[in-house]
Amino acid sequence: MSKIIIYDAYGTLFDVTSVDKAIAEYYPEQAKSIGALWRKKQIEYAFIKQMTGNYEPFSEVTRQALRYALSIETGAEVKDVVDRCMQAYEKLDLFPESLEVLKQQQGVTNVILSNGSRDMLEPLIENSSISGYIDKVISIDDIKQYKPSQAAYQYGLRQFDTSRDKILFISSNTWDIVGAKTFGYKTFWINRGDTDFEKGRIQPDEEAADLKGILNN
Amino acid sequence: MSKIIIYDAYGTLFDVTSVDKAIAEYYPEQAKSIGALWRKKQIEYAFIKQMTGNYEPFSEVTRQALRYALSIETGAEVKDVVDRCMQAYEKLDLFPESLEVLKQQQGVTNVILSNGSRDMLEPLIENSSISGYIDKVISIDDIKQYKPSQAAYQYGLRQFDTSRDKILFISSNTWDIVGAKTFGYKTFWINRGDTDFEKGRIQPDEEAADLKGILNN
Repeated sequence: MSKIIIYDAYGTLFDVTSVDKAIAEYYPEQAKSIGALWRKKQIEYAFIKQMTGNYEPFSEVTRQALRYALSIETGAEVKDVVDRCMQAYEKLDLFPESLEVLKQQQGVTNVILSNGSRDMLEPLIENSSISGYIDKVISIDDIKQYKPSQAAYQYGLRQFDTSRDKILFISSNTWDIVGAKTFGYKTFWINRGDTDFEKGRIQPDEEAADLKGILNN
Repeated sequence: MSKIIIYDAYGTLFDVTSVDKAIAEYYPEQAKSIGALWRKKQIEYAFIKQMTGNYEPFSEVTRQALRYALSIETGAEVKDVVDRCMQAYEKLDLFPESLEVLKQQQGVTNVILSNGSRDMLEPLIENSSISGYIDKVISIDDIKQYKPSQAAYQYGLRQFDTSRDKILFISSNTWDIVGAKTFGYKTFWINRGDTDFEKGRIQPDEEAADLKGILNN
């Protein structure tokens, strides 16, 4: 069986900050702070829904977080702005190296395992240049358990006839690396911010500044 | 049976930002940013440990988060500074109204339900002026399940011979209100920052700017 690499989507293959350009069409001065609060709340809401058992799909979580960020930062949540920014989330930029790295993975099964629900994840990938290089897209929406719950990584493993330590899992999100490593995947942290990994017992197996680092692995 | 009120401790009765004074002994310029990152990571680490099943006590989570914050903000993590700030976390200031509000709750069973482990929670309460007005201190460390998991609120309920809707639950933390309300407690959000509650289906039953608001409830 060919080597299996599982990639996180948001922040790992796709640059989530590229959505700030859509926010800037309405709020040029505040686009960066709105975008930052949006992303902070998006993750927080997903985690809280996971922990409290109030699952809602990531498209709904993302919309709620955007509404919160707009409300706090601008004092209003205009439906047209929300709709426009949510559309932009389906057309995120790839990171500069994403396409080339996927192209160079000869004989590898390239998989995406994402917290994104299919309604937002599938248009994103189909709209992008990498769609021909992705062999399988797995959404945790099928089982309604967000990463980093162990069920989410288990669901990824179930799609393949292999053992967990044979899978290389790649993410820029530290909580995703902690979850995947806890589950037993081999982990590769994309340290895009040139920062420290979280303190604690669980550490990534490898790290690099961008996806090109996995080509030497 | 008397009325039961369950309070969250950190941020609700005790002002967690008061620990910034200890940080300022070493890093006067950066104390606020170190403190803010410390608290952000403290919550995030607890959530990730909850979701991945890697439980560690809140004292350990708090120490890891402090080490991360110091490392990122100052480029170093000096053990003496870590130890001094961890000690300060056992002597947090109360909010100005905490003692008076507890005093005025005649005939009420006042309970604390906290993510704090007993090694940090018990000294904090014993060192404070409210210890004589708290009837019971419950730590989720007993069951190793952090709030806002439903098991944590269930553990609180189990201590009393009553139904969940008879308990008033008070917290300044929005994720705590979402968890408690999902479980079925009556919830009162202390909105200290004069901000919006999170977007979503789960909303607090009541809110006020500080604890005095519950006296009219």
